[in-house]
Amino acid sequence: MEVHPIGTVRSPYTSTGSIPLCASEKLDEEATVQVLPECVEGLADLDGFSHVILLVHMHKATTTKLTVHPPVDDSGMARGVFATRSPLRPNHIGLSIVELVRIEGGEMHVRGIDLLDGTPVLDIKPYTPYDARSPVVIGWLEGRAAPQG
Amino acid sequence: MEVHPIGTVRSPYTSTGSIPLCASEKLDEEATVQVLPECVEGLADLDGFSHVILLVHMHKATTTKLTVHPPVDDSGMARGVFATRSPLRPNHIGLSIVELVRIEGGEMHVRGIDLLDGTPVLDIKPYTPYDARSPVVIGWLEGRAAPQG
Repeated sequence: MEVHPIGTVRSPYTSTGSIPLCASEKLDEEATVQVLPECVEGLADLDGFSHVILLVHMHKATTTKLTVHPPVDDSGMARGVFATRSPLRPNHIGLSIVELVRIEGGEMHVRGIDLLDGTPVLDIKPYTPYDARSPVVIGWLEGRAAPQG
Repeated sequence: MEVHPIGTVRSPYTSTGSIPLCASEKLDEEATVQVLPECVEGLADLDGFSHVILLVHMHKATTTKLTVHPPVDDSGMARGVFATRSPLRPNHIGLSIVELVRIEGGEMHVRGIDLLDGTPVLDIKPYTPYDARSPVVIGWLEGRAAPQG
């Protein structure tokens, strides 16, 4: 299956090391998703939502590993990649839930992004109450993640 | 960018009409994600999580529309596809958050799926407290969605 970008992230993060770990730090920076002109019509009605889900191509990831050492994990143990958010997963698709600030034409302003500047965006979905599950149990991540509101 | 399935959904839903609308009905059926043998190692450590995020190829969607009429929307208005979860979006990538029941080898048993039998799975991610946002505002969907726990 071939997928194509519908837009691009413009964020303050120009290197992976500069991105706060979403599981452990507060993300407050504003960023922009620049949606391609031919896709802008699809943004209609989205401005009524407070949060959106971004699916992206984590384009700096060029290899796949089935076990990884997540940066928030101080155990030294290798974890199955599907039990992590590592970019080294098959298909290199990333997911970020961000606060929607405003939409101006093809520019979607968001807050709380954890994505590199230049990241290709594959999809934008509205975040709904159905996506908020609680309580949740989080396995190896227990005690290593800071829940956010 | 080329993406490849890492597994397949085995669900009781063999036609799109048989799938409950996740925004309006309770999803209780059990289903299975059959992970490809070459990817099973990546499932390690996932069994400690209560919920997972599935990214899938909504393979029955063969066209793209930038505005759609969502089934839960009785207004008759066309909505921007990025303000909906319609399969007719660019890239046809779907997202489902499901309850993880158990993992047996390459078989991941889940509850609450809204995906067709045979749906190719592109990614599995652990659901974390950071993914639960509240309160949220949901634009046109207000009054049309049933929040679930």
